[in-house]
Amino acid sequence: MLFLIFLVAALAAGATGAAFPPGAWYERLQKPTWVPPNAAFPIVWTVLYVLMAIAGARVAGEPDSGAAMAFWALQIALNALWTPLFFGLRRMQWAMVVMGLLWLAVLGCLIAHWRVDWVSGLMFVPYLAWVTTAGALNWSVLRLNPGVQPLDTSRL
Amino acid sequence: MLFLIFLVAALAAGATGAAFPPGAWYERLQKPTWVPPNAAFPIVWTVLYVLMAIAGARVAGEPDSGAAMAFWALQIALNALWTPLFFGLRRMQWAMVVMGLLWLAVLGCLIAHWRVDWVSGLMFVPYLAWVTTAGALNWSVLRLNPGVQPLDTSRL
Repeated sequence: MLFLIFLVAALAAGATGAAFPPGAWYERLQKPTWVPPNAAFPIVWTVLYVLMAIAGARVAGEPDSGAAMAFWALQIALNALWTPLFFGLRRMQWAMVVMGLLWLAVLGCLIAHWRVDWVSGLMFVPYLAWVTTAGALNWSVLRLNPGVQPLDTSRL
Repeated sequence: MLFLIFLVAALAAGATGAAFPPGAWYERLQKPTWVPPNAAFPIVWTVLYVLMAIAGARVAGEPDSGAAMAFWALQIALNALWTPLFFGLRRMQWAMVVMGLLWLAVLGCLIAHWRVDWVSGLMFVPYLAWVTTAGALNWSVLRLNPGVQPLDTSRL
């Protein structure tokens, strides 16, 4: 039951990816040579969402799980915020700041979960690796496309 | 320290409100007579974010706090999802579904926190009242504006 609640929380954040798909704008951007194929993103995220839900459910309610739970909540809020900023508003700088905070939150999750249950801590290792990759991609796209304009929502 | 992490999580969700402001599109919508003034929303949300961060920090790591923490994570993810759907994509039906789930998540928070610490449970009462109001507003706007089109992101 706990696992299901954490999983729905993770999928709510993941729904931003379905609601704000990359589309033609992203396709036109200059990207680094090592960019993962588009198809990789939903597959990787699905695995990461299941892993974080398992880790959260294993640790929730255990003694001294306070920091783990606070970081879990922080990472899912930042996770849900990134996609609307990047693909929705095309605010790559704002998205980069959120990605940096997300990286710290996932590192916090890894350490705080590990202290309660090392298996749960391990489950954040692939997430941290992926956020590192996604952060490098956000950074590269920002550098390779200096002229890109954010969406002017006031004109819509 | 726990309070600060929960507060940043809450503010990350709240950042969607700053990133996706109502704007001219919302002004043009037909609204019910009892619609709260625009200025009320950031004030109310700031109070609610502080209250939920206090409640989360009080309960995190306490015995049997698992359900409270799972619902806390669920409500913040849904909270962050609603604004980009409603004001970003103008998908009022999708937003209404998220609002219904958010209402259930906040009720879950209220009950699960109360069981650990009744003061923390009480802190979700204003949040539940506000989500009820916001849900009624989402529903009314949906009914009063049957012809409203979602944003066609494929043409942007």
